[in-house]
Parts: sequence; C-alpha cells; structure tokens
Amino acid sequence: MQSAQAATHLIANLPSANGVWTHLHPMPGALADGDMPAGEVSLVVEQGLIRWIGAGDAVPAAYAALPRFDGGGALLTPGLVDCHTHLVYGGQRANEFAMRLADASYEEVAKAGGGIVSSVRATREDDEDTLFASAARRLEELLAEGVCAIEIKSGYGLALEHERKQLRVARRLGEAYGVTVRTTFLGAHALPPEYAGRSQDYIDVVCNEMLPALAAEGLVDAVDVFCERIGFSLAETEQVFKAAKALGLPVKLHAEQLSDMGGSALAARYGALSCDHIEHLSAEGIATMKAAGTVAVLLPGAYYTLRDTHLPPIQALRDAGVPMAVSTDHNPGTSPALSLLLMANMACTLFRLTVPEALVGITRNAALALGLQDTHGTIGVGRPANFVLWGVQEASELAYWFGQRPVRTVVRQGRVAV
Amino acid sequence: MQSAQAATHLIANLPSANGVWTHLHPMPGALADGDMPAGEVSLVVEQGLIRWIGAGDAVPAAYAALPRFDGGGALLTPGLVDCHTHLVYGGQRANEFAMRLADASYEEVAKAGGGIVSSVRATREDDEDTLFASAARRLEELLAEGVCAIEIKSGYGLALEHERKQLRVARRLGEAYGVTVRTTFLGAHALPPEYAGRSQDYIDVVCNEMLPALAAEGLVDAVDVFCERIGFSLAETEQVFKAAKALGLPVKLHAEQLSDMGGSALAARYGALSCDHIEHLSAEGIATMKAAGTVAVLLPGAYYTLRDTHLPPIQALRDAGVPMAVSTDHNPGTSPALSLLLMANMACTLFRLTVPEALVGITRNAALALGLQDTHGTIGVGRPANFVLWGVQEASELAYWFGQRPVRTVVRQGRVAV
Ligand SMILES: [Zn+2]
Ligand SMILES: [Zn+2]
Repeated sequence: MQSAQAATHLIANLPSANGVWTHLHPMPGALADGDMPAGEVSLVVEQGLIRWIGAGDAVPAAYAALPRFDGGGALLTPGLVDCHTHLVYGGQRANEFAMRLADASYEEVAKAGGGIVSSVRATREDDEDTLFASAARRLEELLAEGVCAIEIKSGYGLALEHERKQLRVARRLGEAYGVTVRTTFLGAHALPPEYAGRSQDYIDVVCNEMLPALAAEGLVDAVDVFCERIGFSLAETEQVFKAAKALGLPVKLHAEQLSDMGGSALAARYGALSCDHIEHLSAEGIATMKAAGTVAVLLPGAYYTLRDTHLPPIQALRDAGVPMAVSTDHNPGTSPALSLLLMANMACTLFRLTVPEALVGITRNAALALGLQDTHGTIGVGRPANFVLWGVQEASELAYWFGQRPVRTVVRQGRVAV
Repeated sequence: MQSAQAATHLIANLPSANGVWTHLHPMPGALADGDMPAGEVSLVVEQGLIRWIGAGDAVPAAYAALPRFDGGGALLTPGLVDCHTHLVYGGQRANEFAMRLADASYEEVAKAGGGIVSSVRATREDDEDTLFASAARRLEELLAEGVCAIEIKSGYGLALEHERKQLRVARRLGEAYGVTVRTTFLGAHALPPEYAGRSQDYIDVVCNEMLPALAAEGLVDAVDVFCERIGFSLAETEQVFKAAKALGLPVKLHAEQLSDMGGSALAARYGALSCDHIEHLSAEGIATMKAAGTVAVLLPGAYYTLRDTHLPPIQALRDAGVPMAVSTDHNPGTSPALSLLLMANMACTLFRLTVPEALVGITRNAALALGLQDTHGTIGVGRPANFVLWGVQEASELAYWFGQRPVRTVVRQGRVAV
C-alpha cells in the first residue's frame, strides 16, 4: 500500500510519455476519429497530449527528434474507464461474506455488524487518511489493469461531515495517483439509522443542506440516488434531481435493480448521464433513455455476487441503440470486484454482450456515462494521452481470458504509469 | 513473456529464501502439524526447507545468525496448488468465444476452426518451443498469484508424438520456473478426427502404445480419462485404468460433468486420486469416493463459462467427509481461467463452499488430489519452503475480493519468487 505522500511522490517521478509510440495495433473502436488504415499505427505524445496519429512508423519531421517507444506490435486500447464505483469506505465485509456462507442467520450477521450499516459505521469512524489508505489499495488494483478514469461515489457517510470526507478522499486519490476521478454525491444511498422511519426528513437534509454545501466546496461532479423499494421512492428521487438541477449538476440513477420502479424514465427526463443496474428496465425506460442519450450501465459483478437470475434487457437496449457501459460497481457488500477486465468477461458470459460491446463498454461508453467523452474512452489528436498496450494477439482476448492481467504498458495523463 | 532460456536464467538468479521469517499470521489450516498458538509465528528456511516453526519472533540460537525477513504481520498461507489444468496447447479460442456471442451458428464456428478440434490441430502444428512459450505466459499469470504446484494434462495431441510434446513442455515448465509440475496423461480426452467412428481402436492405441511409451520416458505422473456421453464410455475408461494400473500409475477422472455415468465409483474402485467436475455425482459415487479417499475436485470456472445450472452435490460431499479441492480447469474452450483466487471466490459464490473450504481447496486438498500432501498444500517442518505472504488483514479476504492480486511475497521451492 502507498501512503498518500509516497503515492504523490511516485506520480511526480513517473517517466514522461512524451515521444513517438510506434508499432501499435489499435483495437476496433479505439480511435476517436474513425478507423485507421488496417495494420500498425504510430502516435506522438507531447506535453501529455496526443499530437498526431498515423499509419506505419514514419512521423512528420517536426517530431523526428522525440524519443521513440517501440510497442512491438502490441494491441492498443484507450485507457479503461470504471464509471460506477463506491471505492471509498471504512472496513470491508469479508467476515460477513464468510458468515453468510457458513449459514449464519440474518440476525447473526447483523449482530456481528454486517450489512450496509456496518460500512456506514466504519466509514464514519475512519478519519480521512485512513479512508484514503484503504481506498488507495483498491485503486492500485484497478490502475494496475489500465484504468485511467474512475467515478467514485459517496453514500457511506450519510451525514454532511462524513459524505464530505468520502468525497475529499476521492479528490485526493485523483491527485495522488494522477488518474481522472469524477465524484458523485450519493447521499440518498440508504436511510441512516438516526433517520429510521423519517425518510422524507432525511431527503430534505440531503437536498437542502448536504448537497448545496458539498457542491459549494467543489466536491460534486454529479448526483445519484438509490431508487428502489428498499431505497428511496420515485418522489424522493425526483426531489433530489430537482435540487441537483438547481445547482446545475448532472444526475444519474441506481435504477430497476430489484424491481421496475420507473426510475430510469424519470432520470432520463432529467437528462441523466446514466441509469445503472437496470435488470428490470421496462420498454418505456429504454425509449426514454434513448431519447435523452442516457447510457445504460451494466454491473455484472453485482449480478454475479447476488446470484441474480433476472438479466437486463440487453437485446432491447441493443435494438434501441442505447449505449451500454460496463463497470465494477465496486462496493464492499454486493460487488467486491477489483478488475474491469473480469467485468468485461462477465458481461459477455453472463449478459451475452458481444466482445466489441464489452470492450466499448469499459472504454468509450463508460467515458460517455461520465460526460468525459471528449477526453477519455477513445484515442484522438488533441486528447490527453491515456492509453494501454496489451500483451495479447487480438482484442477479443481481453474479454476471453479471465483472472489474467495482460497489461504491458499504461500511459496515464501523459506519464508511463506501468 | 519469458523465453525458455530467459526463464531458466531468471529462476537460477532468484534470491534464496534462507533465513528467519518473522511476524507472520498463518491462515487457519495452513500448518501441517496442527494449529499454532494464536498470534504471530516465525519460521526458519535453510537449504530450501522449512527447518523450524514457532510462536513469536524468537528463534533457537542455532539460527540466530541467519538473515531476517520481516513479514510485517502479513497473512501466511501455503503456496497455492492448481490441481487440474490443461495448460499446454496451441493457439487460443478468443475468436470462437467472440463468434459465439455474436450468435454465430455451430457450423459457422466449426467452419472458422472452432471447438476442441481446433485446439488439437493447433497443438499438433506447434513445435515444442512454441508450445512452451504460449503456456509459459499463462503459467506466469498463475505463478504471480502464488501457485507453487500445478498439474498439467496432455490431451490436445491425441497421437503419441503430440502427446509427448505436451508432456515434455509440462516438464520443461517445471524446470524453467522452479515450480512443482505433476503431469497427467489424458490421451483419452477426445476422439481424434482420424479415428472417427473407431473409438475402441483409439483406446487400444492409448492403452497399448501411447501410455506405455510415455510412461517409459518418465513423462506420466498420473492417468486421466474424459468419461462422458460425448467422451469415452465406462468400459473404455476401465480399459485405460487397467493399463495405468499395470504400469503402477495412479488414475483420476473427468467424471459426471454432464450426466451421471457412474465414472466416479469406477475411478474410486481403482483408488483414484480424484474425481473432477462431478456436477451429476450420485450418492453411490460419493460413498465409493469416501471409502477410497478420493478427492472431489470442483471446477467452478467451467461451470461459470458454460452457464451450467446443475450444482455439484456440495452438501452431500461435506456430510460424507469427502475432501474437496478447487481448481481452474484452465483450458481454451470451457475455462480460460488464469486465477486460482477467482476460483475460490466462484466456489463460494456459485457453489456455496464456505471460505475455509475454498481456501483449503486451493491448498491442502489440492495437494492431496495430486498425491503431494507430504510436500505441498501445508506448511510444516522438513517440507520444501513453499509459502505466500498476502497484503490482507484476514484470510477470508482471499475469497471475498474478486479480480484482485494481493500477493506480497511468494517463496517457491526455497527461493523468493515475487
Ligand atoms: Zn452502485
Ligand atoms: Zn479438465
């Protein structure tokens, strides 16, 4: 594990990626500006940006003096984008995982401190540095696999000071590791114990106190709600969306995971960046999302962990042309997943996404789900240098093998990070 | 990827693990000789063997001058054991994986060269060095996670010279990487195309020509058969077992994966080391296995990839006291899995093994399934130094997170390998 200081030190000392990168094979869909001629390409990185892309290994004379990096024919993809995570929290729930498998009753697990309440308690107890250290270890796993942008939600603090702590840690992680972090305020994740039976009171605090304060501190890039029978109602969700809209913040939604609440259509009417989970998404939801340009974020790690059997409506989303992204949904309860490539494999194996859909889902469409489509998820001239070279022969291997880590080189924000 | 030569060079130059290892927390079941006092332990490694184990960090005076390695309170487990793999083969089948998801018909996949036949063709085409290089890349993924012993089967050659090539590569991998390899002859994996309709003729060749020749060359540690309606019959299986017995070789079986053929009971009557897959295992099979001391090898990666829904009879195996192991079943068709920790997670999540069962399944019981229980799968005085230090707080985290790689240090055959 890196301490905050060591990590910052590390990032500052990463070698620059400035130079000519040759003998690269872009995966289909990797390039922002359409497909390149078949075969190898080269690209030029200067001052952290991609300045030039072309076929073969000859570059314009202006770049001839730059250092050269020979990719050796490696597969080239954009930096991976993990567009839905709850990465910052206190503790972990391995013991709860073990107890449930040992047939502990719900009461026994609760008595031993299980469930989301235990994560809320641990998050409130930890100070900012402790939260940073534990989240950093998890982030390092994702970065080692080629992640260049990640969304991190609050939602285990459920009180102003603790939600602030989570979001500040998310920002610090981005600075320390040189990775693009988008913060999402998810105050409406669960009802905190002290508001039991007073859901409306809590939502009022979320909308009138927590969100405005955190937004004023620059800690909120987007706003999310857990809209579900066991979460918040459609009316409560809309109240949060209105508060977000008043502050000019984009929204997204945990929607239709366990039942069809109609949350997706509501979110799309508020121009949501994404609707996430959506196992029980209706035809109306799909049509509204399509019209609004809302991304469908698929979370196979939670589906797998919960041994869910209700598949999201992949074919209907495909037919409607709704862009599909794939993410870890990293969280300590329902998806302790630390590999985006494994999520691509699970999206194929469990959800029957095609391989190109899965790979676009962890790059281009994941960036779209974060509003980062101009800078991340594809490789293009003028964009920040975020890309990965892989030790595989063909792009489909990224989704075919599972449990592997075939990264050869990661360039993140213009630095050679692996 | 390491070339054969580079790898050998690398192993020879790995630092020796000789010294005093302190501040280690053994996982439950890690030690061969019963549980240690609670708290931290130390151990002494000399000439590649564990010489001493004790509580605290004081060691006998005789070892006081040895170098010290501070484990920093890390979790200590035995080196992992992958007891069922088909690691050596030509090509890979990522394209077939992608085509099936794109709804290609069986004919289209076959026309594009899919199915096991394509792996047989590619394995026959590759020379030994090419097979070594591709298998080495996969082995490196498993080694990076802490594997210290691995079983590797033939069965993609299906002709003497090609089966020999696979088994020779398996032996070379063991030498080059300093990892214990157990070879298994699986000539009866599938009917080679040139024997179509002549199954009995092929089994005669397997028993009378291939097996004796390969055994005489010292290439066979055990003998396996794929006993299934789409594989070989019970009578053919028994013929192979008789041939193995005549040569004094232990047997194991791919049994009851798709249907209850009665293969497990047959195998157990031949004193099989293990019966593997066993989704459709009967009560009689369980009883016979228990009586024979045969290990049940669970392969959740294939279950997951095939989207199987018929669970192996875990509770009945548990009730009967049949030891359960967990393995990758790494193969290019039904389980392109390259992580044993992920298999532990899948064994818990999909098969509902408890966490201790899963962790014993990839260590102690996996060693038992290979007849390696005296040297691998547990940590004990007089045994080779094969152990792993992990960057986690508690053992259950090894099965809880998925897609992570929390290895801190691997000691393999007395050398510090990671
Ligand atoms: Zn979530
Ligand atoms: Zn197998």
